[in-house]
Amino acid sequence: MRGIFIVLEGPDGSGKSTMAKKIGKYFSEQGREIEFTREPGGTKISEKIRELILDNNNTEMNYRTEALLYAAARAQLVTEKIIPWLQDGKIVISERFVYSSLVYQGIGRGLGIEEVKNINKFATANLRPDLVLLLDVNPEKGLRRKLNIDGGDRLENESISFHKQVYEGYKELALSCPEIKTINAERTIDEIFNEIKNIIISI
Amino acid sequence: MRGIFIVLEGPDGSGKSTMAKKIGKYFSEQGREIEFTREPGGTKISEKIRELILDNNNTEMNYRTEALLYAAARAQLVTEKIIPWLQDGKIVISERFVYSSLVYQGIGRGLGIEEVKNINKFATANLRPDLVLLLDVNPEKGLRRKLNIDGGDRLENESISFHKQVYEGYKELALSCPEIKTINAERTIDEIFNEIKNIIISI
Repeated sequence: MRGIFIVLEGPDGSGKSTMAKKIGKYFSEQGREIEFTREPGGTKISEKIRELILDNNNTEMNYRTEALLYAAARAQLVTEKIIPWLQDGKIVISERFVYSSLVYQGIGRGLGIEEVKNINKFATANLRPDLVLLLDVNPEKGLRRKLNIDGGDRLENESISFHKQVYEGYKELALSCPEIKTINAERTIDEIFNEIKNIIISI
Repeated sequence: MRGIFIVLEGPDGSGKSTMAKKIGKYFSEQGREIEFTREPGGTKISEKIRELILDNNNTEMNYRTEALLYAAARAQLVTEKIIPWLQDGKIVISERFVYSSLVYQGIGRGLGIEEVKNINKFATANLRPDLVLLLDVNPEKGLRRKLNIDGGDRLENESISFHKQVYEGYKELALSCPEIKTINAERTIDEIFNEIKNIIISI
């Protein structure tokens, strides 16, 4: 039995956490061991890096610094947790992965997809997920929901045009990455999860 | 009048700080404005990253994470400080730069010089120093001196064979980078600085 690495991507407020739990419950009922993780974070060192990235006081942070810190947090998570879990045959469900950096830093910040892809190849030693579920929801709708809950961190507080660019970036990325499955996430939770279940049954 | 970017490289305890001060004094007497900086560090964000890298408790830090954190600290220093200083016509004197990452992470940690060079090209937006002075001192001698002073941080406490590899890495790097001038640093301070002065007079 080999591990399976599933990534949830999509704009803020698109329902990634809700779907992560439902996917976990599904595999758990099949008798599989599940590990959840979130980005940036998931290890002691990565959580410290997360604090630096999301701190609303770090307004002077350069976009290159930001992209490298995301990659550093990811490198630690991949090597310390994800690879050992997969080697143990577990189901690993991550909210966000390299794809988030490609759209937020590569497109949203204008650093270029190829440049950000290269530093992330280095960070992940080229580990690729078995499946990426892109939860497709209008970015204004998702963001409004998220900011109503907790006021937002440094990235969530970016302008709406930034978040629209990120959304378009996700759609563009889906065209060139066969592992990405786009899911219409503007439906009921049950409708969304039914579609996801049909996909994960076959992996 | 344009700025000049001078980097001091070499093993721990090779006398980089002493020579940085003497070079600064020399240019100051010529009426130039001087800025000193150190790596990793030199900005509020970079100093926070420095704490993470050098913390002796972070024993589980993966080498890729380490290399990306050095690059992140450097990206912030270059964009927030070094480039603006050079644009203002200042003399910028830095203890360590990309070359340290190439030898400590690329060679010492075995990540590969080319891979570490790529993430640092991204970090520095390809900024290159006008001059790199490699202070050449037997690594055992330098290290003994450094550990006697302050007990050492997480990298200084690496094995002596690690430090020997780093030393050989520096020598190798000097062969392929024309901006590196190797200085025999096992002489008196005055002898070393006299040689350096003859180099900086002509830049």
